[in-house]
Amino acid sequence: MDYVYGPGRNHLFVPGPVNIPEPVIRAMNRNNEDYRSPAVPAMTKVLLEDVKKIFKTTTGTPFLIPTTGTGAWESALTNTLSPGDRIVSFLIGQFSLLWIDQQQRLNFNVDVVESEWGQGANLDILASKLAADTAHTIKAICIVHNETATGVTNNLAKVRKILDDYRHPALFLVDGVSSICALDFLMDEWGVDVALTGSQKALSLPTGIGIVCASPKALEASKTAKSVRVFFDWNDYLKFYKLGTYWPYTPSIQLLYGLRTALDLIFEEGLDNVIARHGRLGQATRLAVKAWGLKNCTQKEEWYSDTVTAVLVPPYIDSTEIVRRAWKRYNLSLGLGLNKVAGKVFRIGHLGNLNELQLLGCLAGVEMVLKDVGYPVKLGSGVAAACAYLQNTTPLIPSRI
Amino acid sequence: MDYVYGPGRNHLFVPGPVNIPEPVIRAMNRNNEDYRSPAVPAMTKVLLEDVKKIFKTTTGTPFLIPTTGTGAWESALTNTLSPGDRIVSFLIGQFSLLWIDQQQRLNFNVDVVESEWGQGANLDILASKLAADTAHTIKAICIVHNETATGVTNNLAKVRKILDDYRHPALFLVDGVSSICALDFLMDEWGVDVALTGSQKALSLPTGIGIVCASPKALEASKTAKSVRVFFDWNDYLKFYKLGTYWPYTPSIQLLYGLRTALDLIFEEGLDNVIARHGRLGQATRLAVKAWGLKNCTQKEEWYSDTVTAVLVPPYIDSTEIVRRAWKRYNLSLGLGLNKVAGKVFRIGHLGNLNELQLLGCLAGVEMVLKDVGYPVKLGSGVAAACAYLQNTTPLIPSRI
Amino acid sequence: MDYVYGPGRNHLFVPGPVNIPEPVIRAMNRNNEDYRSPAVPAMTKVLLEDVKKIFKTTTGTPFLIPTTGTGAWESALTNTLSPGDRIVSFLIGQFSLLWIDQQQRLNFNVDVVESEWGQGANLDILASKLAADTAHTIKAICIVHNETATGVTNNLAKVRKILDDYRHPALFLVDGVSSICALDFLMDEWGVDVALTGSQKALSLPTGIGIVCASPKALEASKTAKSVRVFFDWNDYLKFYKLGTYWPYTPSIQLLYGLRTALDLIFEEGLDNVIARHGRLGQATRLAVKAWGLKNCTQKEEWYSDTVTAVLVPPYIDSTEIVRRAWKRYNLSLGLGLNKVAGKVFRIGHLGNLNELQLLGCLAGVEMVLKDVGYPVKLGSGVAAACAYLQNTTPLIPSRI
Amino acid sequence: MDYVYGPGRNHLFVPGPVNIPEPVIRAMNRNNEDYRSPAVPAMTKVLLEDVKKIFKTTTGTPFLIPTTGTGAWESALTNTLSPGDRIVSFLIGQFSLLWIDQQQRLNFNVDVVESEWGQGANLDILASKLAADTAHTIKAICIVHNETATGVTNNLAKVRKILDDYRHPALFLVDGVSSICALDFLMDEWGVDVALTGSQKALSLPTGIGIVCASPKALEASKTAKSVRVFFDWNDYLKFYKLGTYWPYTPSIQLLYGLRTALDLIFEEGLDNVIARHGRLGQATRLAVKAWGLKNCTQKEEWYSDTVTAVLVPPYIDSTEIVRRAWKRYNLSLGLGLNKVAGKVFRIGHLGNLNELQLLGCLAGVEMVLKDVGYPVKLGSGVAAACAYLQNTTPLIPSRI
Repeated sequence: MDYVYGPGRNHLFVPGPVNIPEPVIRAMNRNNEDYRSPAVPAMTKVLLEDVKKIFKTTTGTPFLIPTTGTGAWESALTNTLSPGDRIVSFLIGQFSLLWIDQQQRLNFNVDVVESEWGQGANLDILASKLAADTAHTIKAICIVHNETATGVTNNLAKVRKILDDYRHPALFLVDGVSSICALDFLMDEWGVDVALTGSQKALSLPTGIGIVCASPKALEASKTAKSVRVFFDWNDYLKFYKLGTYWPYTPSIQLLYGLRTALDLIFEEGLDNVIARHGRLGQATRLAVKAWGLKNCTQKEEWYSDTVTAVLVPPYIDSTEIVRRAWKRYNLSLGLGLNKVAGKVFRIGHLGNLNELQLLGCLAGVEMVLKDVGYPVKLGSGVAAACAYLQNTTPLIPSRI
Repeated sequence: MDYVYGPGRNHLFVPGPVNIPEPVIRAMNRNNEDYRSPAVPAMTKVLLEDVKKIFKTTTGTPFLIPTTGTGAWESALTNTLSPGDRIVSFLIGQFSLLWIDQQQRLNFNVDVVESEWGQGANLDILASKLAADTAHTIKAICIVHNETATGVTNNLAKVRKILDDYRHPALFLVDGVSSICALDFLMDEWGVDVALTGSQKALSLPTGIGIVCASPKALEASKTAKSVRVFFDWNDYLKFYKLGTYWPYTPSIQLLYGLRTALDLIFEEGLDNVIARHGRLGQATRLAVKAWGLKNCTQKEEWYSDTVTAVLVPPYIDSTEIVRRAWKRYNLSLGLGLNKVAGKVFRIGHLGNLNELQLLGCLAGVEMVLKDVGYPVKLGSGVAAACAYLQNTTPLIPSRI
Repeated sequence: MDYVYGPGRNHLFVPGPVNIPEPVIRAMNRNNEDYRSPAVPAMTKVLLEDVKKIFKTTTGTPFLIPTTGTGAWESALTNTLSPGDRIVSFLIGQFSLLWIDQQQRLNFNVDVVESEWGQGANLDILASKLAADTAHTIKAICIVHNETATGVTNNLAKVRKILDDYRHPALFLVDGVSSICALDFLMDEWGVDVALTGSQKALSLPTGIGIVCASPKALEASKTAKSVRVFFDWNDYLKFYKLGTYWPYTPSIQLLYGLRTALDLIFEEGLDNVIARHGRLGQATRLAVKAWGLKNCTQKEEWYSDTVTAVLVPPYIDSTEIVRRAWKRYNLSLGLGLNKVAGKVFRIGHLGNLNELQLLGCLAGVEMVLKDVGYPVKLGSGVAAACAYLQNTTPLIPSRI
Repeated sequence: MDYVYGPGRNHLFVPGPVNIPEPVIRAMNRNNEDYRSPAVPAMTKVLLEDVKKIFKTTTGTPFLIPTTGTGAWESALTNTLSPGDRIVSFLIGQFSLLWIDQQQRLNFNVDVVESEWGQGANLDILASKLAADTAHTIKAICIVHNETATGVTNNLAKVRKILDDYRHPALFLVDGVSSICALDFLMDEWGVDVALTGSQKALSLPTGIGIVCASPKALEASKTAKSVRVFFDWNDYLKFYKLGTYWPYTPSIQLLYGLRTALDLIFEEGLDNVIARHGRLGQATRLAVKAWGLKNCTQKEEWYSDTVTAVLVPPYIDSTEIVRRAWKRYNLSLGLGLNKVAGKVFRIGHLGNLNELQLLGCLAGVEMVLKDVGYPVKLGSGVAAACAYLQNTTPLIPSRI
């Protein structure tokens, strides 16, 4: 029996872990296997090729590490940098804050570029720092593509342009945890050196694989990086890649089969269609928020996130109560406001294997909760706005035409 | 891979088979077992006791037959009646029609009492027939509790009252396929002699168990009933009940464990709360239909069904196209109009393990489809009406208070 | 939690229901679907074509009936025969006995040809009956291909030869419940008119589909057969086949996907390889029985069954105690002796998705149980005999070469 | 479809990952959930209490880290030690070698005490080192309880005794990866400071949780340990333990439910009965090896492992070929010989949720493979020896008495 059973399905709209599609649940419904048999390496070989597609890279080297996003961060940093290295890092919300905390504890010398929560990374400061850094003391730029706490998407093409403008050789390390597989991510075109995500985000798997992809330049850097690392050391993987056995330690057999199916589903839908679907759901959510008379935590349209929307509530309402009530009354799981925006925002995650009617059910639920907590929402208003947009833009399901 | 994959979940709103809750899917995720070991009879014994609760009977004898609703019908008839027996049967829609067809093919002498589709059983005619039948030539009254094709619920208490008023000994045979476990069903209080349902309806299991419950009077009748029967013969079950091995032939191990969990979930929620939830979802659906400016196929409030709503569409729209488009564009499964109402109605099934936000997602989807096919619906109107009602009436989830 | 948990896997060696392969369990691990959507008929169409292959027929018409083997029997009889029809039926064990009981209760005029349990059908008597029946009063020959209670396989080619020798037009109805998909079954070559099996036998699925295949001659007979039938009526299926919707009533979505995968596995292995594997496991079992110094219930080699072996125990041992103890101590499920051979035999089912090492584990378990109950078995003797044979005959797994 | 399908079950006898019991597979067959809802912390709280029981500790603090055994090692070391710290570590096989490699790469000053592979840790050398270390320069003793590569179990009680004899304050860090939940492990009684295991070993789960348990002394040491750590930092966990939210980053929902069920099964069987079962299966395996005329890689009885047996093959046979052939012909997964013993030993893992008949199937398979590769084994000999022992010692399954 479940811990806290409620009738009907749970409506999971936290920005991770997200809904797992039935075919993936099925694929993982299995016993363990010997990972040293010929089957698992054969499967892994193809997986490693296929997983590069979600990063839109042909030159990158992927690592499927049995860890979370936090471990993936650590892997990106410790394999490419040495203690004391100067890095530029952008603080725009709770997850960039946590990554910066990790960077500092790993003994890097971090130039923290802070923005107000709800704004994107301040790239003007980046430009001025790079302009001033003719000695190339800055070894890496660390940035989250999509800040999950505030629903802010940074412009990575612009980051690359600034680096190029100043011909700066700094490594370009990107947290794509709540973006990759949902937002367009062009690792090769943007010259990203390390990109990473977690299996429980837009890939729609359980937690358990930190997926890290390294550019040739990042791999080169790993040869001289002096940060102490063992579990997260790419070299151990590369050694086993050469041997053709692939795994320095035991992988999760279930997650490998799950990843296989998750990629199959993404490729069947088409990665660009997946991204377009996220665009559609993101826009529908924002239209609903507007119709409710509420504000998006994200301050400008250029930063709007298609994977998560943080909704500001009026000062007389505690957003934590919204999340609590959604779960207790409507079996709806929303994201809490974190740290600086605790109590002030609640978050709607709209990433992963999700469709229009699921989102509309969520939006209807949010309306009822808003009413529950005393906000004078016009019931149906957000759903109406979202429907008007979706009814115009949703394509037929290709396999059913 | 699924046959016709679409991203996100399928929104299953046909009036059967219905959504299976995750704990039940889990419980059935298993290998076969020897049904002659001590474990399966021990489990069956308790199941047979517990399944009586969904009929609200203490005196009935239940049979868990590996068949569908159609087989359950056959079991009810052939065990209690003899060829040539006169029975009164009400034709009010496709499923009552099919049952009558079966009755006639089984060589009973059927007095068909027909109503317009959208109306309930004509109980005045029943009264007059019983009044006239002082010789007690009528051996049974056959009635569907809830006609799934039109969303019409018959008043069984009234049927019993009429039988009692005329002190008529006819057997009272009830198809509760789309009612039991969703609408209040009082087998003992109403003096129902055979009641039946199928596992894939409000019990929220896969198809595969026809659940038939017989009153002492029905069991008595089975001793003299001359209809030929073997597979459906209650006596074979009763023989094995006495032996304590319970099964005259191999049951589905998976469905037994599934039924165990389905009942556990119903009892945890509370059967009366389950019924109240169906009342809530039914009313919300009807309010939406009204807000859309459409008519319910059910002609009077007294017959409104809390498990399925058949919605009449304007003459210039083909309801089949609504169902087709819902599936092709929104991954929404609605019920077709059947036979006389084909093309004229589509059906929203709202029975089984389902909650408010699932229904609201469906209603939003229906609105978009209505717009797709050219009906001038005001988007959001139905959802607004449903939300207004649900926000007032939905209780907190007990396990989460 | 399971009802009677024991550590490790259950060793399921009853002759049905049998072990379900993991890929089939996975395929069935799913929610319900609308069976009136385009997906289910598309899937069914291919299934009906593919299922004919396990009967080795191109001219037969298959029916996938939501029932058990008992229901499949009833379907075979009632669709082809009329009450009072004279049929010849062979009583050689518990399952042929039950079928005959059904035949009699369905009001056929049954010539029962009885053999000692452990012997095959007495085909000499069949010959003499056909010889005498120049008026063709015999309408059907009913025979079990493999009597599951005694482990006796009848020679169907010989039955056909006798029918042909006498140019007798009787229908040839065959229970292939414990043979089809495991023993070679040549429906077209043998001129079988109705063949049937159950999903929980060699197909290695859960209980729930009675698979019946009718020859053109059987279909023709169904047009005039006067037995009362509704649920089991082939005509209802044929009507829906023509409409392309295939299902007169709700099928089990889970079993359809399960059947799809079960057939895929059989075709991947190769049906003839599946049959050869059963031959190998049957022979290995018989060699073990011999090594233990015990007798096969089957009296002659020509009747040896490759799907089930009934082992005679010495008179001072109760075979029921062997079955009980196997389950209680070793988590091993063996088949009981039934009816006339109750207490005298225990049965080892070796059919379905099973391999050599699973069987050897079972045989080792049987040895220990035999010792437990006081039979002076030489431990290891049966396994040694089986290994000697299997080590010579087991092929490499094709996908792994 | 599986990658390399073979009929019947895979016989998984590598010493990890091991067979997952069906109830655990079922429990993990689920969608993601919000780990910040009240349900997951409530569940985690109880899990943390219950997991202590498998370490037999009341004073330890457990951490359920989303990682593998390698990560658990790193967690144990970096939280308790500082770079340059002197530690004593025992090299007795491939896994102790890998741990030592990690210790060195983490910049500890490692006194490697090497034994011949097949022998246990040389505790005499430990004693002399401790005797000489009056200045207490040795900060930790690192030892694997059970070396999975050679099937050698070290005597931890003796290690504690030596530490006590010399009143030495060194931390006592133990790799219990292939022992905990299978061999008796007395964390409190033995004064172990950090003990660790992986979910895919005797707990019989998928890979994905590194379970680390720290004594109060280890927690105290973590306050001053200067090793750089973030992902593996216990303090992050302790902070969230205090908050009652428990998780510094996203756990695998599926593994939490899996762990819940795995512990339930262990407690239902009784941890000491689980350990006794491993003793029984280990002894049965060793008796089989002896009967085959082969030698155990483990040189003395005092080191015999009840979770894995490494079998030495004659010089004219390549043990790799045994493993390959077992998989290709019999669907049997055995462990390879690693590093120094590559080609010389193959390994039978007999840990986790496994019973007697599963093991006997494996042993029969090994016999056939031995014959396949030209070793003159007497078929049935090993099984006979194992059966003789098991038939005397296997208890009735308690739930079935």
